[in-house]
Amino acid sequence: MNILQIIAKKRDKQELSKQEIDYFIQQYTKGIIPDYQMASLLMAIFLNGMSKREITDLTLAMAYSGEVLDLSSLGKIIVDKHSTGGVGDKVSLILLPLVASLGVPVAKMSGRGLGFTGGTVDKLESIPGYQTDISIDQFKQNVKDIGISMISQTMNLAPADKKMYRLRDSISCVESIPLIASSIMSKKIASGAQKIVLDVTVGDGAFMKTIERARELAHEMIEIGKLANRETVCVLTSMEQPLGYAIGNQLEVIEAVECLQGNMPEDVKQVVLSLGSEMLKLSGLGDDLRQNKDKLWQAIQEGKAYEKFLTMVSTQGGDISYLQNSNQLIKAKYMCPVISKESGFVQAIPAEQIGKITCALGAGRIQKEDQIDPSVGIVLHKKIGDYVEKGEVLATIHANQLSSAKQAEKDLRNTYQLGKERKQIDDVIEII
Amino acid sequence: MNILQIIAKKRDKQELSKQEIDYFIQQYTKGIIPDYQMASLLMAIFLNGMSKREITDLTLAMAYSGEVLDLSSLGKIIVDKHSTGGVGDKVSLILLPLVASLGVPVAKMSGRGLGFTGGTVDKLESIPGYQTDISIDQFKQNVKDIGISMISQTMNLAPADKKMYRLRDSISCVESIPLIASSIMSKKIASGAQKIVLDVTVGDGAFMKTIERARELAHEMIEIGKLANRETVCVLTSMEQPLGYAIGNQLEVIEAVECLQGNMPEDVKQVVLSLGSEMLKLSGLGDDLRQNKDKLWQAIQEGKAYEKFLTMVSTQGGDISYLQNSNQLIKAKYMCPVISKESGFVQAIPAEQIGKITCALGAGRIQKEDQIDPSVGIVLHKKIGDYVEKGEVLATIHANQLSSAKQAEKDLRNTYQLGKERKQIDDVIEII
Repeated sequence: MNILQIIAKKRDKQELSKQEIDYFIQQYTKGIIPDYQMASLLMAIFLNGMSKREITDLTLAMAYSGEVLDLSSLGKIIVDKHSTGGVGDKVSLILLPLVASLGVPVAKMSGRGLGFTGGTVDKLESIPGYQTDISIDQFKQNVKDIGISMISQTMNLAPADKKMYRLRDSISCVESIPLIASSIMSKKIASGAQKIVLDVTVGDGAFMKTIERARELAHEMIEIGKLANRETVCVLTSMEQPLGYAIGNQLEVIEAVECLQGNMPEDVKQVVLSLGSEMLKLSGLGDDLRQNKDKLWQAIQEGKAYEKFLTMVSTQGGDISYLQNSNQLIKAKYMCPVISKESGFVQAIPAEQIGKITCALGAGRIQKEDQIDPSVGIVLHKKIGDYVEKGEVLATIHANQLSSAKQAEKDLRNTYQLGKERKQIDDVIEII
Repeated sequence: MNILQIIAKKRDKQELSKQEIDYFIQQYTKGIIPDYQMASLLMAIFLNGMSKREITDLTLAMAYSGEVLDLSSLGKIIVDKHSTGGVGDKVSLILLPLVASLGVPVAKMSGRGLGFTGGTVDKLESIPGYQTDISIDQFKQNVKDIGISMISQTMNLAPADKKMYRLRDSISCVESIPLIASSIMSKKIASGAQKIVLDVTVGDGAFMKTIERARELAHEMIEIGKLANRETVCVLTSMEQPLGYAIGNQLEVIEAVECLQGNMPEDVKQVVLSLGSEMLKLSGLGDDLRQNKDKLWQAIQEGKAYEKFLTMVSTQGGDISYLQNSNQLIKAKYMCPVISKESGFVQAIPAEQIGKITCALGAGRIQKEDQIDPSVGIVLHKKIGDYVEKGEVLATIHANQLSSAKQAEKDLRNTYQLGKERKQIDDVIEII
């Protein structure tokens, strides 16, 4: 096997064999194939594409390039949930305790966020005492004992994907459906998922800017799921504006707690119930999605989901008194209201821009080594479709530096777009 | 300026500006842009192409990435000659003294061969005493004094091209017309050429395997020449079989001397006279190509060309007695005839295969550091169109090891293709 021939084949639009794909993934992971050869191959894949068979083989080669989490000892169907990413996305914090409270085993290993805001692990770590790096044995034991555990990625899962993703980012090869699809699915397979529910976000704040591209990605991942024997469902959800009201790690935890207590913004509710009903179905707990949603909502109303969340947090060493009384949490020093200078209906709150403003406040990482400030962020008061009077508060900024608060206040006011017509958007667009 | 944006533009089939091209060539030459980013950009160029303007800007950026030979002090039009490469190509050794004998100034700086057989410099170095690394001042002085000097590439010409060429070779991005054309033209411009005659070889032993690809390359280089103000003529010549009879460094020098004495194989003659007549025309020494060929042939007949060659060799320290009596040269230990086992007309002597056999004997380099054995090689006795009787000698192998001679003998017999019909090929295909 020869990497030059493999590059030339893909360059000439030929299909690579499973052996060829396994070869370049293994050799690249070991560092035998250098970055420059992989860069040339990735650009050829970007421009010439891959067949469904090739994408599946690529996914499996990446999934098995390192450790693979074996959850078979749990003796249950493991359904994993993953989002292609968004701003203000606290869905896992709500959805996973919720489905766990109905008997779906949740063994969730999440990466840290590298982007506008922290990832699920960063959000959980804003709860004093919460341990995200417990041992794998303890992780499995927790799932057995209480039905849920959420930890950070302590294992060396899909190292080929990690290495390739970093390279793609530095050679303008990110926005490729085959490469995105295989990257996501390889991580899910490596983390032990047998069935997968994917929240494919669409719009300004998402990887996929248009519904067409999102559909393409969804179909690709479903196809990989079929060929790799991992049943997969995709829920396309809107990321035209941040999800819910809070953006920022601790602020999102507080909002998640409110949601678990039944006080759920409409968009969060739609997304949580849609994803949850699919998870129940894949777990064999009910085929009727309508009924599943009712069951989920009932578990929220009865406090079961919230209870499950508190159990998880305390099992992993977190102090639940902070959740029961969020005033105990250390808040950001400055809270600045953003006052509207005009009246009208909110037309758009471009999520990507909101993400950047939140990141500038200290809520996200630009470099992997950056420290996250858990307390900073933004709480929106108005969302798309709401009417705003001149002088009303659009949002509140939580900052630890006055200068960054002022900058954010200015940027945020410019980000809100008002107009004369009431605008409506679908929170859940379609299910594939 | 940002390399990620430049890669993304080319990936998305957009045209790069002169500033962008200058930027990535300069930064890559300095080592600021790493190989993996250049690899991704080169694959995008390979697959999405470049406009004529982009190719010209790329050529000029590479030409001026290092030192540029300034020949203006010679006060004459400098016409350079270059071949895209072939097997048994001793044309420069014959053609350049020939045109110099008619008043065309020749200031030729050649690279060493990296391929099947040595380059022009390697061939000249097989003449005892010949200095290829004289100073630039001495080089120019020789051109002033005797009208010709042929040396090795002692200056740091077009380092960007050198670095990119090596990278292209290791990422399967060689066979791209824009990249080949700009590579050739950048080296010519850096070595001081004002007008350029290109021998574009076509066929089995050439870079360009088909006449269509060769035409495409020729048109691209002529277009670069126009836009870069370097008038360029391309002569398409056949490389279906080795040129002339000798392949191997010293053997080719001996054949070149015979050619200069008027004993020129027909294919060599056609190529030398075609290229020479164009060089005379570009030098302003005659517009009528027919007449130019006559003048050239007369200079051969009268011994002027041979005399010029001897003058050049002795001026550069070479011992011309070896040329006057080639029996003095140290020959290879073994001379093995290759006997034909059948009768028929020669249909093909695949040049690439012949090149590989010669290289295996020690005549070429695989790595840059490899030592060349000047004495080894092959002398053909039969060429395409010749009739061979069973038992006749097809070729003679010159080797320094018996084992390699035996292997070459076997390989060479398999390489010759005989058939019933007499086959004819054009040595000079067309002029563009």
